[in-house]
Amino acid sequence: MIDHGKRDLVSIEDLSTAEILELFHHADEFRANLTAWTDLCRGTIMATLFFEPSTRTRLSFESAMLRLGGGVITAADEKNTSRSKGESLADTVRVVGGSYADILVVRHPEDGAARVAARYARVPVINGGDGAHEHPTQTLCDLYTLWKEKGRLEGLEVVLCGDLRYSRTIHSFCYALARFGANIVTMPYPGFELPDYVLHRLRRDFGVQTAAASVGDLPGIAGSSNAAAYLTASKPHQLALFTNLTNVEVNRIDAIYMTRAQRERHAGEETSNYPRLSRSTLGAAAAKDARIMHPLPRVDEIDYDIDDDPRSIYFRQAELGVPMRMALMAYLLGKIQLRAARPAALAVMPGIAAGAGLRCRNERCITNNEGVRYLTRDFRLREAESPPVLSCAYCEREIEARFVGHVQSHIVHRYNAAEARRIKPENRVYFESEAQAQAAGFTCQGG
Amino acid sequence: MIDHGKRDLVSIEDLSTAEILELFHHADEFRANLTAWTDLCRGTIMATLFFEPSTRTRLSFESAMLRLGGGVITAADEKNTSRSKGESLADTVRVVGGSYADILVVRHPEDGAARVAARYARVPVINGGDGAHEHPTQTLCDLYTLWKEKGRLEGLEVVLCGDLRYSRTIHSFCYALARFGANIVTMPYPGFELPDYVLHRLRRDFGVQTAAASVGDLPGIAGSSNAAAYLTASKPHQLALFTNLTNVEVNRIDAIYMTRAQRERHAGEETSNYPRLSRSTLGAAAAKDARIMHPLPRVDEIDYDIDDDPRSIYFRQAELGVPMRMALMAYLLGKIQLRAARPAALAVMPGIAAGAGLRCRNERCITNNEGVRYLTRDFRLREAESPPVLSCAYCEREIEARFVGHVQSHIVHRYNAAEARRIKPENRVYFESEAQAQAAGFTCQGG
Amino acid sequence: MIDHGKRDLVSIEDLSTAEILELFHHADEFRANLTAWTDLCRGTIMATLFFEPSTRTRLSFESAMLRLGGGVITAADEKNTSRSKGESLADTVRVVGGSYADILVVRHPEDGAARVAARYARVPVINGGDGAHEHPTQTLCDLYTLWKEKGRLEGLEVVLCGDLRYSRTIHSFCYALARFGANIVTMPYPGFELPDYVLHRLRRDFGVQTAAASVGDLPGIAGSSNAAAYLTASKPHQLALFTNLTNVEVNRIDAIYMTRAQRERHAGEETSNYPRLSRSTLGAAAAKDARIMHPLPRVDEIDYDIDDDPRSIYFRQAELGVPMRMALMAYLLGKIQLRAARPAALAVMPGIAAGAGLRCRNERCITNNEGVRYLTRDFRLREAESPPVLSCAYCEREIEARFVGHVQSHIVHRYNAAEARRIKPENRVYFESEAQAQAAGFTCQGG
Repeated sequence: MIDHGKRDLVSIEDLSTAEILELFHHADEFRANLTAWTDLCRGTIMATLFFEPSTRTRLSFESAMLRLGGGVITAADEKNTSRSKGESLADTVRVVGGSYADILVVRHPEDGAARVAARYARVPVINGGDGAHEHPTQTLCDLYTLWKEKGRLEGLEVVLCGDLRYSRTIHSFCYALARFGANIVTMPYPGFELPDYVLHRLRRDFGVQTAAASVGDLPGIAGSSNAAAYLTASKPHQLALFTNLTNVEVNRIDAIYMTRAQRERHAGEETSNYPRLSRSTLGAAAAKDARIMHPLPRVDEIDYDIDDDPRSIYFRQAELGVPMRMALMAYLLGKIQLRAARPAALAVMPGIAAGAGLRCRNERCITNNEGVRYLTRDFRLREAESPPVLSCAYCEREIEARFVGHVQSHIVHRYNAAEARRIKPENRVYFESEAQAQAAGFTCQGG
Repeated sequence: MIDHGKRDLVSIEDLSTAEILELFHHADEFRANLTAWTDLCRGTIMATLFFEPSTRTRLSFESAMLRLGGGVITAADEKNTSRSKGESLADTVRVVGGSYADILVVRHPEDGAARVAARYARVPVINGGDGAHEHPTQTLCDLYTLWKEKGRLEGLEVVLCGDLRYSRTIHSFCYALARFGANIVTMPYPGFELPDYVLHRLRRDFGVQTAAASVGDLPGIAGSSNAAAYLTASKPHQLALFTNLTNVEVNRIDAIYMTRAQRERHAGEETSNYPRLSRSTLGAAAAKDARIMHPLPRVDEIDYDIDDDPRSIYFRQAELGVPMRMALMAYLLGKIQLRAARPAALAVMPGIAAGAGLRCRNERCITNNEGVRYLTRDFRLREAESPPVLSCAYCEREIEARFVGHVQSHIVHRYNAAEARRIKPENRVYFESEAQAQAAGFTCQGG
Repeated sequence: MIDHGKRDLVSIEDLSTAEILELFHHADEFRANLTAWTDLCRGTIMATLFFEPSTRTRLSFESAMLRLGGGVITAADEKNTSRSKGESLADTVRVVGGSYADILVVRHPEDGAARVAARYARVPVINGGDGAHEHPTQTLCDLYTLWKEKGRLEGLEVVLCGDLRYSRTIHSFCYALARFGANIVTMPYPGFELPDYVLHRLRRDFGVQTAAASVGDLPGIAGSSNAAAYLTASKPHQLALFTNLTNVEVNRIDAIYMTRAQRERHAGEETSNYPRLSRSTLGAAAAKDARIMHPLPRVDEIDYDIDDDPRSIYFRQAELGVPMRMALMAYLLGKIQLRAARPAALAVMPGIAAGAGLRCRNERCITNNEGVRYLTRDFRLREAESPPVLSCAYCEREIEARFVGHVQSHIVHRYNAAEARRIKPENRVYFESEAQAQAAGFTCQGG
């Protein structure tokens, strides 16, 4: 793998907050006259490589590229073609990103697949959804729509409703809302709450504090409001309004973000009383200025008879996706420049730890599936934490490294032992457990 | 639903006769140099949304758009993607017709689906075939080809041969031939005659009179000629030639339009002696100046050894489809203007009758299938008929409204009772039967 | 069928050696700035008609056409659409090559299908792979890559490794290498040797001589080196180096061309010890300046850890495919001219022999499958051989014509009888056997 000096969008974290805001303004410009930009990317080609079908996302990208004047080549259902002959994702993106295309959009069922594509392709890669990991352009479009509707993101009160457990869209959106200083009210369908690892990351990365919440009467989702929680980031915005965070009363809702039950990821859970937004929901006092959002496709969770209500903006989200993706692609292709700085990169800790036995604990991670034949198991290290945390360089699932060994002596210590701290960083090998260390041929001391 | 002030082509009736003729002349211009028009629609995007596969129709539209300089996005087999997550056609066209595309071509297995798409999309919609309902661009291309070959349509003698029962192409073509004053000879494969509702509509809308016909010897289709019928429109052209319409002898055939057995719509009918055109058919005296037409794909009903006969124009039909579709799309996109007037719109009678129990009797209609969750059952009213006729606003299947009630008193009368006629039009509710009225909570009087 | 006066690429033989070399230089020009050619083919449309899926080949062609500024229409999986209604390949290419597209790329599972497409379409047809017959653009790209790497083709030492039996890519490559005067070392996986008919054709058409070979130690493929054979063309280059062709020792390898096991064509053969190139292979002295080639997709036969070795050029092969295909299409579309002469055409002997009972013996040939309904069985005659050889005009499989009859007298003789030679060429009818002649109503004499 070579550093190709190019930009990818694998995670929403790959863009700085300032870059995102600047892209919004470019999207506004594109949107002002959608058909006027056919000279901007003339001669460039985008390839959509979809190993999992998704017409909506694919067509949005393809429309954006055509509106920029570029060409499009499409593999809409890759899992049934070259892959059936056994080709790896790494090989596919090296071929298609060789001379076929100048930018790739990849959708894949395995967590972390987009990072693999980005590493191996020598052209920019955009994540069009990789398993339960991320779907960053959906998040960009959601943020852009809300920003246009409300003129800002900081301090907004956003209700997330429905299946908060299995929706990668919701998870990415949570991180982004926290980053921009919006407050989140979770109103999950019982049993479909935000996963602990999402809450943990919200706390750690954005200082999010959680409290019980009451939202008054929101008919249609009231059944789940007993479990309402209020998530507010302590930074960057100050908690001026909420001195007491034991039970927050939300009287003004800026947006209700509804999601369908992600049945394709369920293990047969019951969803018979799933919440359903209707005229009566919109009649609630708190919803007076709310915007109704949905990533689409909807099933039954929003009544058709509120489609014409001006507060219903789910089709607008889809509409704004095209100019937003135009801005993103024009940027990654170097056709527009931004003044904003990039995000700081976290150091990637390569290889040796993996060689000693560490593996990602996410069974859907590409390192445990398609990539097992050829991928090196890399982790990003957060050594300041206690115990140190290693997050998979592909799917970002975290594991705690409670034991540290020396690459040459093959002696292992607890992470917080003085001997552990004396090992030079470049000689450290990490383990989750003594058993794992022993299996890798290391000897434990001070156990 | 909002009136977007745009033109669609759902039914061939959506274009006036004068518009069609003017489009032929534009198609001629496009055809004169197919590759010279790439500036006309630059910047615009066509989406093909095919919920039922059809390579031929799809590629013809895509070629037409590319030759106009526009872009193309394609969902070639939609039934296996977003739809599997439960998305409605109405939502799909609102998303794709939002900012993704400037014109939509929709093919769908349910009758009336194209009208649903046209109502919900805010950009022009072209029907690429909706169930057994219509396939209007095929009809346009057929008419255009015949018009070019013969220099006119009025007064032509056109033989329709084969499966006349299940072919929507044939039905649309019949209406159009009658409208342009051509005469039709039906030579169906036994058991596959034109359905009664097609004959009824031909009589009512175009004054078509029917007679037995003899066509002399047409080898290959002679077996079915016993059942030959002659259909001639009393308007717009005068029956100068035929004073006695009991048994018309056809000595000059201008075109033989052959169709394959539509096996995918059959209920296991036998087709072993299906007619087959060959050199001997073309050798018949009456066929001397005939043109052999076929909508393609053919199976075995036309011998390969007449492909090179100059009278065989089925590949020409396909060839002319591209310039014809270029003209149509350029028109709907506002890139060319016509002097001809639009057709007069039939008033749509919305809602209340449906609320009282009326439903379309066509079980393949989208209102009884995909749309049952969200569509309002609308009907177009032909009150002048006796009894009044309501035709489904989506699939155009007709039902007779033998009972009329009052929306407030909930009292129902026979349609031809004096009391019925006294109900103000805006207060009328229609029913097919007393039982239906009673089920809707109405009381019958004078029964 | 009409002679449309156009050029096709069905077999690599359809291009002369001089044309190929000139196309290489054009490909170099296109490659120098891939995005600068969008005016060259503006307004033209390429259709990819794939009756067998292949994302890689399809996307390479589509990228090439878009980079030339043309448009693309795609039927990526035709076997599931119109074909299910029973349409023939001949009809499909006549429709799509009518006005839809200006050039066709056809991939089809039956041997000889590309020739059928070329005969019926009135626009240029490129073979994108037809069964086990040919895949000429893959060969062009392979030759181009090797030529760029080594500066020449004549006299190169090329090792072919793996499944040499079922790979059409290997067969086409062999003929082309022989034609350009390269030497071939075959190192097949046991049981997967080059078929006899390939060796026969190499001998006859290029004067190739075969000898046992030793290649020293090539770890990873050593297991198969016992069976190594050395193939060298006696023309056009002189065997200056090899006076003794009993056992050639190869000390310098210019390229190792590895192929995957073509499992989809196997009859359950064992491939557990399939050769595998790795660092140790590249460490061999003879491989010092070798290039590692592979048509891709690979399965396990090349280790990922040699991907970054500068001698590994398999991704470069894919990369160079786009400019090579740009040059080819620009040429066939008349957008660039070559000074080189075309290859001499072999006369096609049409029809009557076939009418008398001859059929192609290749059961995968399109004349025995899809085309049985409509194709005339044509053969190309090589009368100078003894017995005369007839090669199928579609799939090129050869049969020996041991008996010759007279079209009018219906009397048959052995091919080498004096009476046979007295029959005028235009009256000759060929048979494989007496039985075949008798079945066709001919009488044998001198038997």
